[in-house]
Amino acid sequence: MKGYTNGEIQDFEDETSPAGVILGLDGGTTSTVCICMLASASISFGGGEAAESLPILSRASAGCSNFNSVGEAAAKETLEKVMVEALSMAHSNSSAVRAICLAVSGVNHPSDQQKILEWVRDLFPCSVKIIIENDAVAAMASGTLGKLHGCVLIAGTGCIAYGFCEDGRQARAAGAGPILGDWGSGYGIAAQALTAIIRAHDGRGPQTTLMNNILNVLGLSSPDEVIGWTYADPSWARIAALVPVVVASAEDGDEVADKILHYSVQELADSVKAVIRRLKLSGEDGKSPFPLVMVGGVIEANNKKWDIGKEVVKLISKDYPGVFPIRPKVEPAVGAALVALNQYTKSFRVDQSS
Amino acid sequence: MKGYTNGEIQDFEDETSPAGVILGLDGGTTSTVCICMLASASISFGGGEAAESLPILSRASAGCSNFNSVGEAAAKETLEKVMVEALSMAHSNSSAVRAICLAVSGVNHPSDQQKILEWVRDLFPCSVKIIIENDAVAAMASGTLGKLHGCVLIAGTGCIAYGFCEDGRQARAAGAGPILGDWGSGYGIAAQALTAIIRAHDGRGPQTTLMNNILNVLGLSSPDEVIGWTYADPSWARIAALVPVVVASAEDGDEVADKILHYSVQELADSVKAVIRRLKLSGEDGKSPFPLVMVGGVIEANNKKWDIGKEVVKLISKDYPGVFPIRPKVEPAVGAALVALNQYTKSFRVDQSS
Repeated sequence: MKGYTNGEIQDFEDETSPAGVILGLDGGTTSTVCICMLASASISFGGGEAAESLPILSRASAGCSNFNSVGEAAAKETLEKVMVEALSMAHSNSSAVRAICLAVSGVNHPSDQQKILEWVRDLFPCSVKIIIENDAVAAMASGTLGKLHGCVLIAGTGCIAYGFCEDGRQARAAGAGPILGDWGSGYGIAAQALTAIIRAHDGRGPQTTLMNNILNVLGLSSPDEVIGWTYADPSWARIAALVPVVVASAEDGDEVADKILHYSVQELADSVKAVIRRLKLSGEDGKSPFPLVMVGGVIEANNKKWDIGKEVVKLISKDYPGVFPIRPKVEPAVGAALVALNQYTKSFRVDQSS
Repeated sequence: MKGYTNGEIQDFEDETSPAGVILGLDGGTTSTVCICMLASASISFGGGEAAESLPILSRASAGCSNFNSVGEAAAKETLEKVMVEALSMAHSNSSAVRAICLAVSGVNHPSDQQKILEWVRDLFPCSVKIIIENDAVAAMASGTLGKLHGCVLIAGTGCIAYGFCEDGRQARAAGAGPILGDWGSGYGIAAQALTAIIRAHDGRGPQTTLMNNILNVLGLSSPDEVIGWTYADPSWARIAALVPVVVASAEDGDEVADKILHYSVQELADSVKAVIRRLKLSGEDGKSPFPLVMVGGVIEANNKKWDIGKEVVKLISKDYPGVFPIRPKVEPAVGAALVALNQYTKSFRVDQSS
């Protein structure tokens, strides 16, 4: 073992023993991704320049691991399978693992963390540091290369704003699902567009090009058929997939679509601002800089004129000029791996100095 | 057979043969009710004074008969069962039936009418007039004693406005379900109240007494638990059952609850006005009188100060001063029976005069 010099970790391993590895897992409602990375990586946390040179050994993926969606047995099996596969693809094994971060959607309480810890604890040596977090942690860390400070805004099918302080405090806003008013989400935007069609058709709302544009995409011939289409399949993602049609309609000058997107921007900005305010992420005076990591299909649904993410940042910066937006270059599972690596190097330093 | 005098039907039957009967059926998503009534009833259509003296022989009830909810086989069985039971309770049988109106939720197209007609046609003699309609028809007729002219507003778990012209034209507004923005419905009101709790809790919205009032009713200890409660059971009626808590909170001076109810009133009035406008129910000048039948739990959720139905009428009458609100004294199945009776007496008059 080489130890470390000047606070930078150089190499944790004897050159003869198998290389230590780190696992980072991003478990979502659609898919689960596990990254295996060398534990000997020298990462300068906080910058973005190291993203391209991360020592990633392998990447495995599987289906949903949110136990609320698929049940506990299936979630446990998926988590186990995807980690075993990532290790195998990296020609490594569980004894080489130094730290793991599982960032899994559905984890909201300490009891959720305890449950998942019990599922995976026996798969690895006792010395392995295992961190269980919500999947927002992986998204946050993917933008800050492992550092948990600032705010992350995830706007895909659903939406949530999650804030982290360096002292460990966390806060969230939105993320309550479509029934409970996540109007900034992809589902929320598309549901408003479908509602606008119904209103134009039955005489309650203004005419809108969303009518023809959405009917064309769905292959329907009349607005009456929209009701049946909506209720034929309860999948939120299927509704949310209409977001690009709303953006395109707004870009072509449709006022109804434009209004829906502006409302969505307001909602997303409100969620972020609520988190900033509660955690004082921008300092007592609201002027300090802080990172805002932004991910998800709604943020990426930008065309020539309409860029939802840019508009959200514009609104936030009116109140908090120190907002520093980051669109991550690496995927959330890599963020999770960096959280694990960060923890491992910290504990390693403590071990060495004690 | 006595025939008729002065255009009033006195008695259709020989005194020796079994009395002719009428069936009226109201098929909803929660329950199905069938009324058996004497075909010899003398009804003055349009007034409300005859409601108490209708010659109702029996009333049978069963579960859901909306084929979209329970499937075609179960819906067919329920319709058949409830009609047979009503006839049996009235000590009558299918050969005594003169006319039937089945007003069933889920009937929206001629193909739906044809399907149900095929299910029930063989149960009765060929001469029996069978009318198949949407359940809004039963609600309308329950307020006008069988006459299909005017508008009906149904605001229960869902909401819909349905308009009828004497020439047979119909129009509807709303009734598209919770995903598609029925914000005036019981579900819509309660979902907004639950959303207000989430917003107050995560710092996006003002504080509201809805928080404690709803948590108490649901037996929950924290707003975080509301998300899990909401998604634990997808029943819309379960959410809509919170409407009385919203009304009570508004009456106690809660501004958030008050705003939700005012928005709901606006939405319901907009739906009715869209139907009036499209059918010109209030004449070319918008000043002619027309009946507005109002039914459902939201309309009935009035306490001392807040009366949603009254506020809806107030808004409509600003544009259409001829609106004449009716809160029916008889149930929708009786309305359906009166539609059938109305048709029967019409055809009887035609037969006699031809």
